[in-house]
Amino acid sequence: MEKVIESVINFSEGRDESKIEQIIGELKKTRGVKVLDYSHDEDHNRCVVTFIGDPESVIEGAYNLTAKAAELIDMEKHAGGHPRMGATDVIPFVPIFNATMEDCIDLAKKAGKKIGENLEIPVFLYGEAATKPENSNLANVRKGEYEGLKETIGTPEKTPDFGPAKMHPSAGAAAVGARKPLVAYNVNLHSNDLNVAKKIANAVREKKGGLKNVKAIGLKLEDRDQVQISMNLVDCEITPIHRVVELIKAEAARYGVSVAESELIGLCPQKYLIETACHYLQLNDFSDNQIIENQVFFEDGEK
Amino acid sequence: MEKVIESVINFSEGRDESKIEQIIGELKKTRGVKVLDYSHDEDHNRCVVTFIGDPESVIEGAYNLTAKAAELIDMEKHAGGHPRMGATDVIPFVPIFNATMEDCIDLAKKAGKKIGENLEIPVFLYGEAATKPENSNLANVRKGEYEGLKETIGTPEKTPDFGPAKMHPSAGAAAVGARKPLVAYNVNLHSNDLNVAKKIANAVREKKGGLKNVKAIGLKLEDRDQVQISMNLVDCEITPIHRVVELIKAEAARYGVSVAESELIGLCPQKYLIETACHYLQLNDFSDNQIIENQVFFEDGEK
Repeated sequence: MEKVIESVINFSEGRDESKIEQIIGELKKTRGVKVLDYSHDEDHNRCVVTFIGDPESVIEGAYNLTAKAAELIDMEKHAGGHPRMGATDVIPFVPIFNATMEDCIDLAKKAGKKIGENLEIPVFLYGEAATKPENSNLANVRKGEYEGLKETIGTPEKTPDFGPAKMHPSAGAAAVGARKPLVAYNVNLHSNDLNVAKKIANAVREKKGGLKNVKAIGLKLEDRDQVQISMNLVDCEITPIHRVVELIKAEAARYGVSVAESELIGLCPQKYLIETACHYLQLNDFSDNQIIENQVFFEDGEK
Repeated sequence: MEKVIESVINFSEGRDESKIEQIIGELKKTRGVKVLDYSHDEDHNRCVVTFIGDPESVIEGAYNLTAKAAELIDMEKHAGGHPRMGATDVIPFVPIFNATMEDCIDLAKKAGKKIGENLEIPVFLYGEAATKPENSNLANVRKGEYEGLKETIGTPEKTPDFGPAKMHPSAGAAAVGARKPLVAYNVNLHSNDLNVAKKIANAVREKKGGLKNVKAIGLKLEDRDQVQISMNLVDCEITPIHRVVELIKAEAARYGVSVAESELIGLCPQKYLIETACHYLQLNDFSDNQIIENQVFFEDGEK
């Protein structure tokens, strides 16, 4: 069975539905690519599209989308609430099946080279594909955003990995990289006390001394009279979901608060949920091959 | 994506490796069928083989295996520790993907008709495919075993659904049916007290007033200085795995004993483990479509 790669491209159009459809249309008509989901936000003026495919097709899809976005989006006229530096702002490659992080780093370099050379858009490699340590963090790559980068691009710290050492006149610059799957996970509490939610969020998030690989904020759910710990889990292989929810339970108990429910937003790799089941069942020596569906779908040739 | 059916055939040869290979060979060379696992037992003088495929191929595979077993196994000369009534003793059809129990009942009838008419082996429909209420329980169908059934077959209570109303002279009779996936699940305890294990097993098994759909016995693991609750979970949709392990924990606590670990033997449908994860994470509104792999493999047409 062939390698399966996911990409979650962010491009800088969240208002003009016709342009969004044209840009995503390029992806949909790329052979070997399957669009799983997309959503846009008017305030952010940004669209996120998730798709999968074999390595070559995913590069092709990302390139086709980027070419169309460069044609339709003018960063000189772009405004939006989310930090951005280019028409196609971020292109990560994520290993899903039969693929390694090395495969995705390789894909990022191939895609970056093609975009840089053919479309004349400067490309910065980020995440696991970064060639400079500071560029592993996307926020550093994008520092100054489109407007600021116009000034700093080409300086030693801001030399792109591919393409011209200056911004594309309308499409700006792109970050192309590799990362693990990201899980958007929220835990709702039997409490309407935003203060409690913020304290718990701070207790679990990496930045404040909590769990590594966890980004968390406390929110109020106005329609529910509940508060929520809203999280991005950036590496559930190292910091599994069960550890996050158990720490939240322990911190919440301090305030006499319990967990009401949790929710996974969007997509999640099967193995992270199987890992959760194995943890709570104390299930040792379990192999993914024991899942019947994996025997049906994940083997070569036969079926 | 096509329907995927599993079958777990039991045939009455556990000693002669050459015959076992010939019988399973018929399955392996059936187009569209994939053999996942097989194992035989000399004491039981019996072999269990698990395979999957599309509906037509699974019928074909079951038929081919049954024909070869009828040729190679003589029930007149068969002895073994496990109850049995025929060369090919039991043929269940199990819905795995995109298939319903109705599909499997239909398959059981088609396969049973073909085996009865072409091979002249009497076939009793059992499990969900049973046409008489008492035949839903395989033990009732097989009552008297090969030797006893030679006398009773053809009486009103023992009229086969397909084939002749008398035993095949060497191959006996076959039970063909439909059932849900069966999960073999064991829980090991931090204790070497067999008495405690037996008490807990009795507390959780359906027969003794425990959980519905749970068959359980207490065993001693000689190599580990631990005892085990060894179980068959016959309907994890209605009686999920987490409920079983939590009841064991509660009953074990009565004796000051805790769970050391658990193990799943053989195959398990993905959904049962996802359900476990959802339970412990208190994950509501989760859809199987959120599992990335399901998007990759379980959709029609593409990829």
